[in-house]
Amino acid sequence: MKTMVREILKIDAEASILIEGLPGLGMVGKIAVKYLIKQLKAKKFAELYSPHFPYHVLVNKEGRIRLLRGELYYWSENGKSLILLTGDSQAQTIEGQYEMANCILEFAEKHGVKTIITIGGYKSDNEKGKVVCASTNRKLLEKALNAGAIESPAGNPIVGMAGLLLGLSKLKGMEGLCLLGETKGYMPDPKAAKKVLEVLTKLLDLNVNLSDLDREIKRIEKIKAEMRKVRAESVISREEIREERKITYIS
Amino acid sequence: MKTMVREILKIDAEASILIEGLPGLGMVGKIAVKYLIKQLKAKKFAELYSPHFPYHVLVNKEGRIRLLRGELYYWSENGKSLILLTGDSQAQTIEGQYEMANCILEFAEKHGVKTIITIGGYKSDNEKGKVVCASTNRKLLEKALNAGAIESPAGNPIVGMAGLLLGLSKLKGMEGLCLLGETKGYMPDPKAAKKVLEVLTKLLDLNVNLSDLDREIKRIEKIKAEMRKVRAESVISREEIREERKITYIS
Amino acid sequence: MKTMVREILKIDAEASILIEGLPGLGMVGKIAVKYLIKQLKAKKFAELYSPHFPYHVLVNKEGRIRLLRGELYYWSENGKSLILLTGDSQAQTIEGQYEMANCILEFAEKHGVKTIITIGGYKSDNEKGKVVCASTNRKLLEKALNAGAIESPAGNPIVGMAGLLLGLSKLKGMEGLCLLGETKGYMPDPKAAKKVLEVLTKLLDLNVNLSDLDREIKRIEKIKAEMRKVRAESVISREEIREERKITYIS
Amino acid sequence: MKTMVREILKIDAEASILIEGLPGLGMVGKIAVKYLIKQLKAKKFAELYSPHFPYHVLVNKEGRIRLLRGELYYWSENGKSLILLTGDSQAQTIEGQYEMANCILEFAEKHGVKTIITIGGYKSDNEKGKVVCASTNRKLLEKALNAGAIESPAGNPIVGMAGLLLGLSKLKGMEGLCLLGETKGYMPDPKAAKKVLEVLTKLLDLNVNLSDLDREIKRIEKIKAEMRKVRAESVISREEIREERKITYIS
Repeated sequence: MKTMVREILKIDAEASILIEGLPGLGMVGKIAVKYLIKQLKAKKFAELYSPHFPYHVLVNKEGRIRLLRGELYYWSENGKSLILLTGDSQAQTIEGQYEMANCILEFAEKHGVKTIITIGGYKSDNEKGKVVCASTNRKLLEKALNAGAIESPAGNPIVGMAGLLLGLSKLKGMEGLCLLGETKGYMPDPKAAKKVLEVLTKLLDLNVNLSDLDREIKRIEKIKAEMRKVRAESVISREEIREERKITYIS
Repeated sequence: MKTMVREILKIDAEASILIEGLPGLGMVGKIAVKYLIKQLKAKKFAELYSPHFPYHVLVNKEGRIRLLRGELYYWSENGKSLILLTGDSQAQTIEGQYEMANCILEFAEKHGVKTIITIGGYKSDNEKGKVVCASTNRKLLEKALNAGAIESPAGNPIVGMAGLLLGLSKLKGMEGLCLLGETKGYMPDPKAAKKVLEVLTKLLDLNVNLSDLDREIKRIEKIKAEMRKVRAESVISREEIREERKITYIS
Repeated sequence: MKTMVREILKIDAEASILIEGLPGLGMVGKIAVKYLIKQLKAKKFAELYSPHFPYHVLVNKEGRIRLLRGELYYWSENGKSLILLTGDSQAQTIEGQYEMANCILEFAEKHGVKTIITIGGYKSDNEKGKVVCASTNRKLLEKALNAGAIESPAGNPIVGMAGLLLGLSKLKGMEGLCLLGETKGYMPDPKAAKKVLEVLTKLLDLNVNLSDLDREIKRIEKIKAEMRKVRAESVISREEIREERKITYIS
Repeated sequence: MKTMVREILKIDAEASILIEGLPGLGMVGKIAVKYLIKQLKAKKFAELYSPHFPYHVLVNKEGRIRLLRGELYYWSENGKSLILLTGDSQAQTIEGQYEMANCILEFAEKHGVKTIITIGGYKSDNEKGKVVCASTNRKLLEKALNAGAIESPAGNPIVGMAGLLLGLSKLKGMEGLCLLGETKGYMPDPKAAKKVLEVLTKLLDLNVNLSDLDREIKRIEKIKAEMRKVRAESVISREEIREERKITYIS
């Protein structure tokens, strides 16, 4: 078995841009692309399967089983068209990462794609909402800078599909851009995803309302506040335990 | 070398259902399928070999060597027929898991199989004998619910062959059902296997006497009781050692 | 690159038996087969290369570099003939182990081999010089028992090439025997190798003088004695250090 | 995807010698070959891509993304010609190492290469600037000895591409030489690289000025001195912390 894409809808999907957002740091890419899919009402037209995904299946709310997979959506309106890629997981081995990236690029090529945009998180301890960008192509990079992104520091390695898709795109004569939202990364970060989408929608001149993300941002803020509270309490109780121990020890 | 199935008996095995039970949590699947094979007097007709099994061989009571393998049995009576799969091990790598699942499904397809039923364990600290089910197909799921299973919680990942066979079966136009017996999982659990078989035999309207499993259940209960005793004693002796050490230290 | 055998000598090597001894527990197999090669003055006629060996090369006494490899020797006298296999290493991955075993068996088949004999170590804390055997074939096993081996306990897994070659030989219509010398295994064990060779030469009615192994046995005994001495001293010095520390602590 | 070399310049590169220096111990090989490339003004004519490199991409100073890769340079002057290979990384798996080495050798063969020279580091605690050599070929080895190298100790394993390229070159009818600069290995070591280049330029009668390396050597010496200072300070501060703790403990 090899990584493969199965078209589930016979539509004539032609798009010059593919946007990727798979799980990664802070889930920034996945949150952003899923939000785009929902807001644009993009249509799922293909699924990607791979022997490099983890070897388990998922059960949904109705007890239905399914393989881990990538999902490809298509959207077209007023002469604009996009292919959007998200999914459950990244490939689990080095060779699997390269194979999957190649498989996606071959599919993209078949559908007329000329530009790959990948979205991910950029690890940072101060969350100032920056969006970092890098590209295979200086002109494309400048468009992203004009849309509000800042240049990635040199030497910054872009790990996984968000990086490989771009690196390999050059070998296929495509161009690529990466948008990374600044994130602490330890929790899903819809705030960083929103920042990336602000840049992306400006860059592509997409008319997408981003305010629905605010609810998700609030939900995560609340969870984080609760976690901080629990941690503070556990510090206190640990200190109490230590106090008790000291006493025991002294006695 | 690739994973392969070798037919060792030239019989015209046609069955619409394949039941899988390989080693896993609490050995629930393997115990259940081996018991079915014995009670139904199913005939071994094929063996599965794979370079993804662990790289050692087994020696039996007569000093005979054999490779690790999967075993496929066939049973047919009164218009009913089954293929039953058990074996020594699961594949040891991600790619191996996918390759093996695909190999089994291709073999099943060749023999007319339309439905895959996989059996495994469901990790739980309270052993109330529940049987959890999930399916690729709502209708099949409801049959399992009617036979006494309960629905799997959403998000529960089904790991290994019990999951992959079902996930991949959909891509081949088959349908699949998973029955997972609640188990603590750290020891072979014939009790959980019996619970699964109660559901399965009702579901398939199989006439199988399950009382022979009770002996095995008692044997395991006895071992567990002995282990608890040994553990209790070792706690005591560890405390004694600590006491002695204290004394040494003080002197 | 795949595992491959390169014939370096164009001889008409036909032999019904192949004897394998690669590095493993106590180096029993390698020591035994290398000794046989030397005593029988067998001729190297082929080398095995594999991308599953460790990824380094060796430098010999003359500064000469070579790949890790397996070596195949041929011996023929008075109507008897043998192929002997030894080498630098075992394959480093599961799939590599299966691939290498298959490659060796295909080569053996081409040269008329009907029986594979593998030699290895059997982990044991009391070194009573037992030779444990197992086989794909009861008749062959009995020959080994008659030659002084004892039956392997059931369930004993035979790990690596010594096991896989035999397990896979059955699929190719060959038969196989494994001779395992009892060894603690943490050091090269020529004593265990000698015991295995006593059984093997009797079994195959080979006229091989085993007394040259005694020098090697003495050399290892001496090293072991020195190691025990060093260990004893280090225990003493560790105790002295502890004493000193106590004093420091008290002061 | 397989490891592959893409020619980016259509030149008629024919050279009898390929010199390899990929990242490794003390970066000796990479520093040496990059220095040669710069001084000789060699021209990049091909790039090597592989699914066995780490799965990330690099970003350069201008925000440009690129895959990890190997780079092949060509130099020719006064009847002498060389192919020089350096790159970002070694292959990350055993099979990947063998595949990449084979891919490089096939490319070399196509361009008329008869001799492979690999450069690396030789782990040693005293840095006396020795250059250790080993070869597939006694005659070639002696040339290196005459040029100032000393013979590698027997049994010394040469790990990674520097070793495999040579071991595999023999199977392709080429000859190979390895030059290893003595290094502690924990930091880039331009001093060791310079020592290797002294041997290499003498051996190949290359006219290369090595004095530009001295700046790099000084830079690294300075960093090392700073690191020693930081370490010394941190030892002091750790002792202070311990002192404080003692006090706390006593109180």
